[in-house]
Amino acid sequence: MKVLLPDTIELSPVLPAGWESAVVDARAEIPAEHHDADALVVWGSSRRHLASAARDLPRLRLVQSLAAGVEGILAAGFGDEVVIASGTGLHSRTVSEHALALILALVRRLPEALAAQDDHEWSSEIGGIQPLHPAGRITTLLDANVLIWGFGDIGQTLAPLLASMGAHVRGVARSAGRRAGFEVVEEDSVRDLLGEIDILVDILPASEATAGVIDADVLAALPDHALVVNVGRGTTVDQAALRAALADGTIAGAGLDVTDPEPLPADDPLWDAPHLLLTPHGAGGRPVGADERIVHNLRALGGDGEFDHRV
Amino acid sequence: MKVLLPDTIELSPVLPAGWESAVVDARAEIPAEHHDADALVVWGSSRRHLASAARDLPRLRLVQSLAAGVEGILAAGFGDEVVIASGTGLHSRTVSEHALALILALVRRLPEALAAQDDHEWSSEIGGIQPLHPAGRITTLLDANVLIWGFGDIGQTLAPLLASMGAHVRGVARSAGRRAGFEVVEEDSVRDLLGEIDILVDILPASEATAGVIDADVLAALPDHALVVNVGRGTTVDQAALRAALADGTIAGAGLDVTDPEPLPADDPLWDAPHLLLTPHGAGGRPVGADERIVHNLRALGGDGEFDHRV
Repeated sequence: MKVLLPDTIELSPVLPAGWESAVVDARAEIPAEHHDADALVVWGSSRRHLASAARDLPRLRLVQSLAAGVEGILAAGFGDEVVIASGTGLHSRTVSEHALALILALVRRLPEALAAQDDHEWSSEIGGIQPLHPAGRITTLLDANVLIWGFGDIGQTLAPLLASMGAHVRGVARSAGRRAGFEVVEEDSVRDLLGEIDILVDILPASEATAGVIDADVLAALPDHALVVNVGRGTTVDQAALRAALADGTIAGAGLDVTDPEPLPADDPLWDAPHLLLTPHGAGGRPVGADERIVHNLRALGGDGEFDHRV
Repeated sequence: MKVLLPDTIELSPVLPAGWESAVVDARAEIPAEHHDADALVVWGSSRRHLASAARDLPRLRLVQSLAAGVEGILAAGFGDEVVIASGTGLHSRTVSEHALALILALVRRLPEALAAQDDHEWSSEIGGIQPLHPAGRITTLLDANVLIWGFGDIGQTLAPLLASMGAHVRGVARSAGRRAGFEVVEEDSVRDLLGEIDILVDILPASEATAGVIDADVLAALPDHALVVNVGRGTTVDQAALRAALADGTIAGAGLDVTDPEPLPADDPLWDAPHLLLTPHGAGGRPVGADERIVHNLRALGGDGEFDHRV
């Protein structure tokens, strides 16, 4: 049995007995010598590579993505006999870390500090004696109300970090209740809540249902001191509305790791929005625990256990 | 019994029976009508204010600082009958939050992201597919070796936050062992450890013993990819050596909330050191739990319980 590993990431899975591996160019068609592969690991793989896999690997039974999204794989036309497994969960620690970095940078006013540093200015507005909760501004996570929209694996990794720093954290999901120890509200009732939210964290995936969910109405319902952070997908935010809210001061700041489109064109007006901190989709991009996920699902393919995150 | 509260912070202690409070100008001499005070709370108080308290309040038995450092109070010449209590611990949550903000900003390259944003540049160096642990650079707290030099209340608040994000955290203190669940090494043996440290966090207080402790030798012993963060006191770092290390690339970055002197003069070359993120002593400056600390120590003054953080 043979599993093909992509050359876009260093992997060293401890393969189950009877398996061998080969590294292939994830941007190219699969060479004839590997058309006997039983499993394929996908990471940064080109459309051409996936089309070749769907067409040229008659024995293929498992496509293991290391990314959370598998739209490209689903579009490649694999047969029904091929199990497709996503990399959901492999990015929870890195993306939640980046989300926390963006949140803390905005809360602790690091972009303003860097601007003052450029001017050699010891800003008494940012430093020195200050109230714990100044009117009209969030300067600490202590007692901050955080809403995580899209409360999956990443959100459930981020939530306890924020809570341990004193924030009150709730999630938004399709059905209300409690998840991972946190209160979760339904999407339909989220609008009633927005007026009391200090920090809105968007971790929504891209889909028809999530397109433009963070729109002008949502932004208007947030307090003027609210911060918005997006580490989900750029399409979930109405970017023109976000720009307007930042420019008009109806929200206090935003941290985006994702935009629509990506890369953001150099002439897009979003770059210059005030109080915006933008990172170029760098939150994840480095799966954690990929080897273990691969091995687990190769075992499952052999009848040993259940598939992890089968799509 | 009367306690004088400073006008530099909003306080509302639930006073023990028999106590009344009055708010006084913390920058001015204490007015005659309050020379009968038994206790004084100190926050951002001027030297003149403290001198007046030491001289004019014959019934004074407790000086409660809300700051961790009490050098100014000790220098004011209070009699031996006056208990002096520090605000140690009241700043642990805010200072550890700021330390984490600086650490994550450096790890997640936010200053570079802001510079790229200024240039409307979607940087493929910062974003996209990347190794989890690239050679010669720290880009995540996962598996990072963090050393917290000065492992008191703030360090012990910061350590579990870092550990929960996957870092391996050790402290430096006067005696080796374990503290708050973390390994603590002695100052004498810290030099042997520096070569394996990815992130050095300085939370040392100002004292003769700590002056310039983070010197050229310490900085040289750190790996080139190391990050240095100081939320302790500016005097603990040899700033010229730090500037040189940043300029020469023998450390990868620094985040300072404190400098020597403060404010940092506009013509100080430190402002323009490369890979430096500087905030103007804004980590703390807003005690958390001040009311409870005041009440606790007023009770202790009445014989009810022990003083908290008596100096």
